Amino acid sequence: MSRKDLLRLFEPERVAVVGATPREGSVGRGVMENLRSFDGDVVGVNPKHDDVLGFPCYDDIPSVPGSVDLAVVAVPAESAVDVVDSLGERGVKNVVVLTAGFSESGGGGAERETALAEAAERHSVRLVGPNSLGVTSTPSSLNATFGSASPREGNVSFMSQSGAFITAAVDWANDARMGFRHIVSLGNKSVLDETEFAEAWGEDDGTAVIVGYLEGVEDGGRFVRVLRRVTRETPVVLVKSGRTDEGARAVSSHTGTLAGSDRAYETALRKAGVIRADDVEELFDFARALDALSLPEGDGVAVVTNAGGPGVMATDAVGDTSLSLADLTDGTYEALDGALPDAASVYNPVDILGDAPPERFADAVEAVADDPGVSASLVIACPTTTFDFDALAETLVGTDVEIPLVASLMGGEATREARDVLSESDIPTYFDPGRAVRSLEAVADYRRAKRRRTGEVRDFDVNRQKARRILETARDDGRLGVEATPLLEAYGIPTPESDVVGSPNEAVQVAEGIDGDVVMKIVSPDILHKSDIGGVRVGVTQDDVRDVYEDLVSRARSYQPDADVLGVQVQETVGVDDGVETIVGFSRDPQFGSLVVFGLGGVFVEVFEDTSFGIAPVTDTEAREMVDGIDASPLLHGARGSQPVDTEAVVETAERVSALASDFPSILELDINPLVASADGVSAVDLRLTVDKEEL
Amino acid sequence: MSRKDLLRLFEPERVAVVGATPREGSVGRGVMENLRSFDGDVVGVNPKHDDVLGFPCYDDIPSVPGSVDLAVVAVPAESAVDVVDSLGERGVKNVVVLTAGFSESGGGGAERETALAEAAERHSVRLVGPNSLGVTSTPSSLNATFGSASPREGNVSFMSQSGAFITAAVDWANDARMGFRHIVSLGNKSVLDETEFAEAWGEDDGTAVIVGYLEGVEDGGRFVRVLRRVTRETPVVLVKSGRTDEGARAVSSHTGTLAGSDRAYETALRKAGVIRADDVEELFDFARALDALSLPEGDGVAVVTNAGGPGVMATDAVGDTSLSLADLTDGTYEALDGALPDAASVYNPVDILGDAPPERFADAVEAVADDPGVSASLVIACPTTTFDFDALAETLVGTDVEIPLVASLMGGEATREARDVLSESDIPTYFDPGRAVRSLEAVADYRRAKRRRTGEVRDFDVNRQKARRILETARDDGRLGVEATPLLEAYGIPTPESDVVGSPNEAVQVAEGIDGDVVMKIVSPDILHKSDIGGVRVGVTQDDVRDVYEDLVSRARSYQPDADVLGVQVQETVGVDDGVETIVGFSRDPQFGSLVVFGLGGVFVEVFEDTSFGIAPVTDTEAREMVDGIDASPLLHGARGSQPVDTEAVVETAERVSALASDFPSILELDINPLVASADGVSAVDLRLTVDKEEL
Repeated sequence: MSRKDLLRLFEPERVAVVGATPREGSVGRGVMENLRSFDGDVVGVNPKHDDVLGFPCYDDIPSVPGSVDLAVVAVPAESAVDVVDSLGERGVKNVVVLTAGFSESGGGGAERETALAEAAERHSVRLVGPNSLGVTSTPSSLNATFGSASPREGNVSFMSQSGAFITAAVDWANDARMGFRHIVSLGNKSVLDETEFAEAWGEDDGTAVIVGYLEGVEDGGRFVRVLRRVTRETPVVLVKSGRTDEGARAVSSHTGTLAGSDRAYETALRKAGVIRADDVEELFDFARALDALSLPEGDGVAVVTNAGGPGVMATDAVGDTSLSLADLTDGTYEALDGALPDAASVYNPVDILGDAPPERFADAVEAVADDPGVSASLVIACPTTTFDFDALAETLVGTDVEIPLVASLMGGEATREARDVLSESDIPTYFDPGRAVRSLEAVADYRRAKRRRTGEVRDFDVNRQKARRILETARDDGRLGVEATPLLEAYGIPTPESDVVGSPNEAVQVAEGIDGDVVMKIVSPDILHKSDIGGVRVGVTQDDVRDVYEDLVSRARSYQPDADVLGVQVQETVGVDDGVETIVGFSRDPQFGSLVVFGLGGVFVEVFEDTSFGIAPVTDTEAREMVDGIDASPLLHGARGSQPVDTEAVVETAERVSALASDFPSILELDINPLVASADGVSAVDLRLTVDKEEL
Repeated sequence: MSRKDLLRLFEPERVAVVGATPREGSVGRGVMENLRSFDGDVVGVNPKHDDVLGFPCYDDIPSVPGSVDLAVVAVPAESAVDVVDSLGERGVKNVVVLTAGFSESGGGGAERETALAEAAERHSVRLVGPNSLGVTSTPSSLNATFGSASPREGNVSFMSQSGAFITAAVDWANDARMGFRHIVSLGNKSVLDETEFAEAWGEDDGTAVIVGYLEGVEDGGRFVRVLRRVTRETPVVLVKSGRTDEGARAVSSHTGTLAGSDRAYETALRKAGVIRADDVEELFDFARALDALSLPEGDGVAVVTNAGGPGVMATDAVGDTSLSLADLTDGTYEALDGALPDAASVYNPVDILGDAPPERFADAVEAVADDPGVSASLVIACPTTTFDFDALAETLVGTDVEIPLVASLMGGEATREARDVLSESDIPTYFDPGRAVRSLEAVADYRRAKRRRTGEVRDFDVNRQKARRILETARDDGRLGVEATPLLEAYGIPTPESDVVGSPNEAVQVAEGIDGDVVMKIVSPDILHKSDIGGVRVGVTQDDVRDVYEDLVSRARSYQPDADVLGVQVQETVGVDDGVETIVGFSRDPQFGSLVVFGLGGVFVEVFEDTSFGIAPVTDTEAREMVDGIDASPLLHGARGSQPVDTEAVVETAERVSALASDFPSILELDINPLVASADGVSAVDLRLTVDKEEL
């Protein structure tokens, strides 16, 4: 079914409520009450009644005359599957199941949900839920939910994995005079999920902003692909809860699903161009701003205020964001000088003084808006003795300003009318200057996300056959170490000259083929921390190779008599002194597939957790963002007098590791640690990976 | 004048307004209007009127009959000094100067302000302002401001360096049903400043919480000493603006003063036990919580919610703070099991389901409140079809709960009454669960700050005479390097055995007295980065000392022919390999004196800016907090298999450096870099300092 079809869920002309009832406090009555304001037809289905709240009620689904565009199901869980089957046979294509008692609860609920999805599948039914609060569509005053509040009309479409949060948000938004277009309570997402609604709303001309509350996504790969496309045209703001470890545990226990790691979500949302809000307040602050404002061309903000203190607060808030306080041009200073009294401050934040009448606000706002360095403006108004918020609102609405404009009206009751007037004219208002600034940042963030080059997934010349053969050598538990170095070579990742040998003679032979001293390491999947048992020796001269071989093997034996010793690696010495130790690797995430990681070795990762992530397939642009995205990246670019390393080689290694992750789902995790990066390129000095042999 | 006296400003029986006038839009009229609600007497002083808004008006100050407890001055700037003089002669002790045109403006304003302060001083007048919005005291309905809103009565006393912000805050607080006790607009702080009001309110029984908006403090040392005492009894929450670099510049341009660095403010506020709010919303959220709640005994929070999604959001918010989600005991689980339906989740966050009546909330809250691991509780209520916020409020007010309780009422208009009822009963309410959680954290932060042991400033046996003699050897530009190593020895800070020598023979002689290889460094204040020119040689054997001496001197000469070469340092080798390079030093801050810094050497400071600060004199407790306060501190305690270093020696070095800073104000800055810390103690390997020779 196409996206356009999905929108029909929100555009019915005739709605049937299966399980309609006049019983007080019931879900079936709640929906019927809310449907009283619907512009179209409503019928009930319930053999016990001929009429519910004045709407005709039929015995069963086949008896309903005429067409049914949307069915709302509020029957006991045991009957729900049959009802959906019956609706499907009747040709009803849009069904919202409010009934609870499926996968969210025990006692056969999961099986029942599978049967429900299968029934929907059989009849190509677009099914919302089960365990949904319902759907709402303000253009036709459709409120097919059992929530207690009806939303105002607007351009924001809203999905939520929590039904209760919809009711709360609508009540709050009514108070804040914020409106919605479509609202869907996703429920258990047995058929339709967040990705499908985002895709449909992305093609809906009436939806200006998509917002959502999610606890998880159903199919991470599809979500990222589709949302990346949607966010090119329509801003998407999401609260994804489970941000913290404690929150993630709460999500798992609440939804009963294994939560993907939050850094995978963070990486995926960024890749998809989604603006992430941390809490409810931000979600709607950002939504209002994205709905109302045009996109700023840059990051420079001008603040116009009638009070110095709040101007400083706004400046602090700007300093906390990726925005900056614009340096105004001489022309702007002259214009402000001409428009403002002598005691005013023409420097940004522009302080137009406590006695400023509305016209002075307008003059100042128009002057800064003409400045080429100003991409957005914040007006702050404090109540002074003679100040009139209503007059300010009228005047601001009349200004001729092209750039995005937000207002901080620093008062309570006195600002109520003005807030409404400004909101109606697409000037979002806030009490706190900080919230106003953060909302401007969200709009600037969206501009960046929308225009961001995704880059391309480069196609490297690799040897998949060879790689597969090496993976097949993994032990029964799937582990592989440096003996798998040829795997990296097969994927074009430079490694030091080396070989794994099984005898002192072989060791001498290999060492003779290598220029200079060698590094020798015990090779055993049972010995994870080789250095700890003296299993790594550097600077071994040709003369010592034989002795060191014997020594390494005997150390391994005495450390762990039954260790599986595969041999000793004899390796070219890589000049770590001239380079920087980095880590490149990947792990698997239940939602998003392969999560590629980059960081600097040692304390940087272990103590500072200074790492960056990408989701495979990683594009060239993304790999570069990963390498530049760690706090320690100046160390790669020659901070502290060191020579800059060949970052392009590091970037390419991240891409090649991503290719390995995509090509071999059987590799569960892989770490090149260290990958030594120097001015001359990179070299993968050590390696660990785990293979799922069943998947090979 | 004592603190108790200062409170008289807020308790006048008779107020005189000098410059009272009926002229519309004037400051003099604004005050008179606001004084109409005052419980005491009001008179005006203005030769042009006999009566202003119904109050008697006298020609001049001497003509006013009877006593005057508080005078409000709203005359032109030119007359203000004479008015204060005249008030002083009349015996008026409390004066608020609203008049602007002093240090905040040019044209002789600064001189005028000095004269004003001198006049106040002459007559022992407690003077607020100039450039103040006025003062307010709700117990006697005194509103001696020209602001447009009158506050409700409450227990929060509020000072602000921005008058406009007071008006804004009061208007907003009225809407939120939040009250105030005393409010003062500090204005230019020519006589009375933030520290005096904090001290007075700290002794005021009616003040439960002190809040403030500050752009700077007048006397940093006094502020910290006094506030530390005040916060032992009364919570203080401040917004200190100029947090960011951009904000600090805006403060400087707004107040015309040199702003102290924000990290000095951050350190000072922590030392003083002040809770810092980042923005306006936090300031009043925290104030309401601190006013209403008792102090929690620990950090464990229990969440009781009628909706899973918002419960997860609250859990995320807890994860962002220093609080934690309490693990409940088996006893609590049993109690919850007994009280809740089967489908409810008894695990924290406790989900009591969407159909929960108020009694179920009460049962769950009482059950978790009895849990020994629960120190505070958050109730989240979402509107469901049958939900009644008012009934919930009534029920919660009646619960028998000892621990702090906050509520997130997730709705708009529907929650209005409930919010009022709960607030009246000291249960603060918020829409966003995140704001509720952060407010609980502020209360927990205050508990920690209140109970925190300050520690003691240890008295070390040091040689001040010797230190002074070394400082006197500083060059004309005040710089000193390793040649000042004896300064550290005079303050008991261990240094490697070393000497600065002026000839190859001397070098050999010194090296012979040192065990093992030596380190040799060129000593020249003109060569800051010795390593860059090969001016440092490690591992020098006795045989090579002579050659290395010649080589170092010739390198210095060829690098900079006119460099002032003081000689060569011959130094014992300190085993850096076994230790950790740290940095200890201090710089001067315009507001707070000496700011002592600690960090790990190299990239940790330069790339990660991972440093901690203390204000001298640093106590033993504070020095320990500094050493443990950096992100990299695990590296000192033996992370990654290394040996733990002697952190007590590092702590003591920070204290000794603090003593040096306090004893010699002439040292403008000092850096021991590196101070090598190992299991055996510390050693100051290199040193740089700058001395103000005039101060010596």
